[in-house]
Amino acid sequence: MRAAIHEAAGQVIVDDVPDASLGAPTDAVVRVLRSCVCGSDLWAYRGIIVRPAGSRLGHEFIGIVESVGDEVATVAVGDLVVAPFQWSDNTCPACRDGIQTSCVNGGTFGAPGTDGGQSEAVRVPQADGTLVAVPGGLAAVGEELLPGLLGLTDVVATGLHGAVLAGADEGSTVAVIGDGAVGLCAVLGAHEILGAERVILMSRHPDRQRVGQRFGATDIVSARGEEGIAAVRELTAGLGVRHVVEAVGTPESWQMAMGMAREGGSIGAVGVPHTMPQLPLFEPFIHHLRISLGIAPVRRYLPDLLSRVTAGTLDPRPVFDMTLPLESVAAGYAAMSARESIKVMLA
Amino acid sequence: MRAAIHEAAGQVIVDDVPDASLGAPTDAVVRVLRSCVCGSDLWAYRGIIVRPAGSRLGHEFIGIVESVGDEVATVAVGDLVVAPFQWSDNTCPACRDGIQTSCVNGGTFGAPGTDGGQSEAVRVPQADGTLVAVPGGLAAVGEELLPGLLGLTDVVATGLHGAVLAGADEGSTVAVIGDGAVGLCAVLGAHEILGAERVILMSRHPDRQRVGQRFGATDIVSARGEEGIAAVRELTAGLGVRHVVEAVGTPESWQMAMGMAREGGSIGAVGVPHTMPQLPLFEPFIHHLRISLGIAPVRRYLPDLLSRVTAGTLDPRPVFDMTLPLESVAAGYAAMSARESIKVMLA
Repeated sequence: MRAAIHEAAGQVIVDDVPDASLGAPTDAVVRVLRSCVCGSDLWAYRGIIVRPAGSRLGHEFIGIVESVGDEVATVAVGDLVVAPFQWSDNTCPACRDGIQTSCVNGGTFGAPGTDGGQSEAVRVPQADGTLVAVPGGLAAVGEELLPGLLGLTDVVATGLHGAVLAGADEGSTVAVIGDGAVGLCAVLGAHEILGAERVILMSRHPDRQRVGQRFGATDIVSARGEEGIAAVRELTAGLGVRHVVEAVGTPESWQMAMGMAREGGSIGAVGVPHTMPQLPLFEPFIHHLRISLGIAPVRRYLPDLLSRVTAGTLDPRPVFDMTLPLESVAAGYAAMSARESIKVMLA
Repeated sequence: MRAAIHEAAGQVIVDDVPDASLGAPTDAVVRVLRSCVCGSDLWAYRGIIVRPAGSRLGHEFIGIVESVGDEVATVAVGDLVVAPFQWSDNTCPACRDGIQTSCVNGGTFGAPGTDGGQSEAVRVPQADGTLVAVPGGLAAVGEELLPGLLGLTDVVATGLHGAVLAGADEGSTVAVIGDGAVGLCAVLGAHEILGAERVILMSRHPDRQRVGQRFGATDIVSARGEEGIAAVRELTAGLGVRHVVEAVGTPESWQMAMGMAREGGSIGAVGVPHTMPQLPLFEPFIHHLRISLGIAPVRRYLPDLLSRVTAGTLDPRPVFDMTLPLESVAAGYAAMSARESIKVMLA
């Protein structure tokens, strides 16, 4: 089968690889219908982190179950399924706590040695705990909803999780730092799912601002750094924002997050802190901040999000603004790295 | 009047100073009945932070109102009052959020330029927002309850706040790092007020272990570092603890806190991070931790805590294990610095 492979920073190829196959009785093999490129895929692409040459790429995919191991009970051949970007047994203590990303039997698609989502098919470990089948399958939802379902595999749930970690709730005011797909989905989650009344999106890109507004942003702030902080404070009677979503993970974004948080406020951080190894502690101590961090446990949110998308009450599709065939995935990485695309779908 | 003064690291004296007096119509002057030495007073005493020579010492006191400014309405001359260690107007947005330590009109007793609690009398700014009168006054509570009320000015509320920040609740398991007065009071707060079922206290000192057990600790772990983490994990089926109170503020205590937290757990940090300027971010990100920090807004908790102490349902008095006259305060600093005393009361 064909699969995207990381050769080196800036070099993504598509090559022949062995067909995905069952390796354990709890596995399933899923034939990929749609996959996509993630902002987090760009860390290695840009050379900020090192990824082994030859490793498979992609952790977001939806598809049709092609085969299942003997112990798989909840999905069957032919099912349309949505996969979170990490697999999990969904029964261990961490999973029962809703932290499926800490599953003792968990792992990440596209991690070295595993199948990646940017390919024709994927071996899915812990299929019962991982995959969520779409009621009625492809016939019930139709091709046009597939991008919405694809969004659930990572960015929609990750953005929502950032807003949850930030404590956003009904009627609240939320600021979102980061106008990538996750930041935009934090707007969507805060507004559409958690009921935030006011959502301030930090964004300098008109195309992203438009998606942000469609997703529920009530205010857009294009200034950055101290100017951005001042602008947000001006919007909030000088007090700052009670709920801040940090969806970037750099020193600059963290500085903004802490600067615009209200006394006693909360920061929900879902940006992987690759370039932010250390957080100054005195500032959050003095301003009495709550900082919640974590890789989003997508599986926790998936059943609810899936029912919203199939019911038509949640539409994350605008987050995808470019579609390419798998064979052209390299162009997708290049476009996202150059910020010419918010998020590239492979179909 | 007489007051304790910081001369230099390791040098505390008692000297004559101008009598405390009203400086604004919102002030009160309180004649001190009991005050005490705080673990945080030791930072400057030990030379870890610099405090101006000549500055007054002490931020914990209870006493009798001696005079009030024209605008003071809620306390009157003769009232027995409890003061939080910071004053606040209790009406600004931060105060209404329960973050009185961020009050726009707030300040800390004993900060350079203010009166300290380790003295005969104290000027109290924002008296209406700050002081809480004890119903019935001294006649109602009697001398024997005064140490209990004195404990509320900082350590009882700060320990409770650590447990609140850590999310401790009915039936929960909590670990407390730090067996100083604040750590011990975190045990008390978690067990007596929040209803935690299991409280693990990290302590190597038999005298502090005894107070911890009296306050509700169900398990004592004397090991430190990786051994301490392993011991706590052994007590919790290998999973770690959902709620950790960090009541020290050093790199070692933070490392233990993160090491013993369960996946998705919460750390409530009330130890001033003087020697812990930076927190590594990747570890809490991967383990999905919630980190809540802050100077305890004692005023938020004071009315409830006061009613518990006067009703006899909360008894923090064992936290004081040495009583000295104000003139001997230097001996109190020396005893606490040498860990010969948990907390010294001045009476």
